[in-house]
Amino acid sequence: MSAEKTAITPTRAQDFPEWYQQIIKAADLAENSETRGCMVIKPWGYGIWELIQQQLDRRFKATGHQNAYFPLLIPLSYLEKEAEHAEGFATECAVVTHHRLETVKDPVSGKTKMIPAGELAEPYVIRPTSETIIGAAFARWIESYRDLPLLINQWANVMRWEMRPRLFLRTAEFLWQEGHTAHETQHEAIIETRLIHRQYEEFLRDHLAIPVVAGEKSENERFPGADMTLTVEAMVQDRKAIQAGTSHYLGQNFSKAQNISFAGRDGAVQLAHTTSWGVSTRLIGTLIMAHADDDGLIMPPRVATQQIVILPITPKEDSRQAVLDACQALAETLRHQTYFNDPLRVHVDTRDLGGGVKKWEWIKKGVPIRIEIGPRDLETRKICIQRRDQAANEKEFAIKEDFIRSAHEVLDEIHQTLLTRARTFRDANIASCQDLEAFHAHWAQDNPGWLHTPWAGTPEQENELSKQHKITIRCIPVPGASLPAHLGEPAASTCILTGQPTSAYVLWGRSY
Amino acid sequence: MSAEKTAITPTRAQDFPEWYQQIIKAADLAENSETRGCMVIKPWGYGIWELIQQQLDRRFKATGHQNAYFPLLIPLSYLEKEAEHAEGFATECAVVTHHRLETVKDPVSGKTKMIPAGELAEPYVIRPTSETIIGAAFARWIESYRDLPLLINQWANVMRWEMRPRLFLRTAEFLWQEGHTAHETQHEAIIETRLIHRQYEEFLRDHLAIPVVAGEKSENERFPGADMTLTVEAMVQDRKAIQAGTSHYLGQNFSKAQNISFAGRDGAVQLAHTTSWGVSTRLIGTLIMAHADDDGLIMPPRVATQQIVILPITPKEDSRQAVLDACQALAETLRHQTYFNDPLRVHVDTRDLGGGVKKWEWIKKGVPIRIEIGPRDLETRKICIQRRDQAANEKEFAIKEDFIRSAHEVLDEIHQTLLTRARTFRDANIASCQDLEAFHAHWAQDNPGWLHTPWAGTPEQENELSKQHKITIRCIPVPGASLPAHLGEPAASTCILTGQPTSAYVLWGRSY
Repeated sequence: MSAEKTAITPTRAQDFPEWYQQIIKAADLAENSETRGCMVIKPWGYGIWELIQQQLDRRFKATGHQNAYFPLLIPLSYLEKEAEHAEGFATECAVVTHHRLETVKDPVSGKTKMIPAGELAEPYVIRPTSETIIGAAFARWIESYRDLPLLINQWANVMRWEMRPRLFLRTAEFLWQEGHTAHETQHEAIIETRLIHRQYEEFLRDHLAIPVVAGEKSENERFPGADMTLTVEAMVQDRKAIQAGTSHYLGQNFSKAQNISFAGRDGAVQLAHTTSWGVSTRLIGTLIMAHADDDGLIMPPRVATQQIVILPITPKEDSRQAVLDACQALAETLRHQTYFNDPLRVHVDTRDLGGGVKKWEWIKKGVPIRIEIGPRDLETRKICIQRRDQAANEKEFAIKEDFIRSAHEVLDEIHQTLLTRARTFRDANIASCQDLEAFHAHWAQDNPGWLHTPWAGTPEQENELSKQHKITIRCIPVPGASLPAHLGEPAASTCILTGQPTSAYVLWGRSY
Repeated sequence: MSAEKTAITPTRAQDFPEWYQQIIKAADLAENSETRGCMVIKPWGYGIWELIQQQLDRRFKATGHQNAYFPLLIPLSYLEKEAEHAEGFATECAVVTHHRLETVKDPVSGKTKMIPAGELAEPYVIRPTSETIIGAAFARWIESYRDLPLLINQWANVMRWEMRPRLFLRTAEFLWQEGHTAHETQHEAIIETRLIHRQYEEFLRDHLAIPVVAGEKSENERFPGADMTLTVEAMVQDRKAIQAGTSHYLGQNFSKAQNISFAGRDGAVQLAHTTSWGVSTRLIGTLIMAHADDDGLIMPPRVATQQIVILPITPKEDSRQAVLDACQALAETLRHQTYFNDPLRVHVDTRDLGGGVKKWEWIKKGVPIRIEIGPRDLETRKICIQRRDQAANEKEFAIKEDFIRSAHEVLDEIHQTLLTRARTFRDANIASCQDLEAFHAHWAQDNPGWLHTPWAGTPEQENELSKQHKITIRCIPVPGASLPAHLGEPAASTCILTGQPTSAYVLWGRSY
């Protein structure tokens, strides 16, 4: 692609945040709404979310989880039960205080308007997350160790009042899934927390083509009320981190606050160990920032709203119908194929628009494969294939039957290209750092990458460094985290700040 | 079933409303929550909703609709734009007035508590329905007739503050889908309204085994802001009506209020014609009341959370594993079959409980087919089949391979039995009435059925009759509505109240 002409202005290099907004607009994924901080997710964007939902849901069910639904509104007194949790969400809760509207007349203008009426004895907050309301149900449902483990998931909307919203990444309302489980022992609860952590890592890699670093959050960065928070951290193209999913071991904190107790094997009453975990529409923001380029969105094939778009080329009226028929027939044949448990998603664009306009629209919308069929192709049975992971003018020709047979392989190849590209970029932008001076200097750069350092500092020392450089410890990578090979095996060393001996390493970075 | 012993107490005949609560409890479908009027939908109930969603969603997509997502919160000023609409929902709106919580100390007790803080300049209401917020988006999206029709659907939660909530049928928060479409002409918008009306009728009949009367609402009963409301009305076992789904032609009312305009084919600016339509978790309440009996829930096979449950009978330890293996193998084979586009849903109940306890649990949960396999069956290859549409002690034996081949036919048969049973009951409880005295007398009965009468009264006269007998006009049946044959073809007659000549007929009934 030439530097002079790109479909998206500005380019990533010129202005990354504005490029991101323009990608969303050009691909028609979402837009801001009248409601402060809340977005409208348009069909092309919602299609991605539906696929993420379906594919994750299969994983949850395959590992024994069941879906259920709990109230949107949480009585204020419930939220208050777990103090740390309540405090963590207090500054971003939407509060319902009235249950009807009343029409009043303005004494000056004489106009009528509606005002809140029917004040509630106890206000409700719109769930920012559902530990407290689901915990109350668990307390009712669980009587004996035989009722455990209890493995529940909820697909829902939640609300956290955001002062600086950004489409998909940080919105006042967002869609997510929240898993909530209760277990007999700490051991089992931690196994669950880790299982989901691994599921998220695999899902991002195998469905969204995003390589993540799987790790644990430092105490400062833990979920309010959790004993341990596991996270998957993605690097996007401005080298910032996005926390893409988290899995929390909540210990007995919520059980204590809500009396989630059970008669154990020995008959004695015990408190359950609980977990919670979630991913949200933020994943869509992550995949945009990870894969899109200066020509528009690039959708990872497995969650692409459409995987293949067929563009009929109809220069002459007399061959027009034959071309259209051939396109529809090809689409039908492809739709009978299965890819990742679902029929291939194929669209034929029959709109009466110039070929160039159409082609660029689908490039901007990020469809993995574009196929052109014109009158001459009907005889040769050849079709022209263009891939979104390649330059816009690259093309190859294939015999139609060969393409039909290999369509899923092409999609796999595109997935692999995106994953490899993202991993190469990420690995090149995570550096090892054992020297405090170099550490300080690093953050003065534009779009600095992440640093991997030995660390034995206190939460206060971490806070100080964080404030100084606008960074955070993204995570303490877990054993087996897919870190760049060049970091080597973590060896005994000394803390980059305090000089204390340590073999613990952390990853620092800027983040969304 | 003997009258003395039923799994559910009270029976339908003894106390229908309480029977309904007990069915939900015994089948573990849902429960009341801490949040006023809001329910927790438990996994067994939510499973039904997931299936309703998937199956309806396929229908919507097959007819060209796309899903999208719009904000939960609606600025009060938006709701006010369509006056009739705002007034219609004013008494049941949950209002958000604050966006954070503050901790304060009680000066007397010294205890701290949280109170709402950060008052909003403009309050928001939690969507009771989304015409206004989606209309605002439509106004932005639609520029020319080329952008029409715009066919959008949303799966979402909505909130209507209910003073007398009842699980599934009437809850403050409920889950639903709401379709919203915009069209170039009145004609096209009315075709859409009717298309969806027919989809709902078919869905209830073919998926939920519920025969409905398809009709139009009288002016009194219309959706606030609509020009025409079409409805599908189900009769449940206490002979009350449930409005199971509605499809509204909104005319240009919302377009005018929100300026949903477009440049027409002649270049002149016009207002779009819009529609909206929805069904909700109320469908679950409807199917319970339509099909369940005094032994528990009966799930229509196509939306049954599990369609087949296999119960291993293991009287002796030495044959136990062989029986369990045979059960799992049968389940696997069945799960490879497809029924209504999805793999068969089969569960093996391996819990270490008495056979009778297990059997009754699955009866109460309404699973369409129960299969028992014991040690002796391994040699004969025979399995014992029990059907939820038959008496609890009825059983038949089949060669395993024969059952595998015919499983989908058995499910179809059960569906057909439920549908026929419901239709027979309904038809027997809709009577023709042309005599005012008989009309008045009818409603003094316990659980009166519906009456089909000629009608030419005014909305005020309708209101008066409604109040007098606690009834409503459920609908004006549309031509082709599947009314009982004994009603005959509607002939010219005279209004039951006013004596005016009319050929219009309406259905009266009590309702939920």
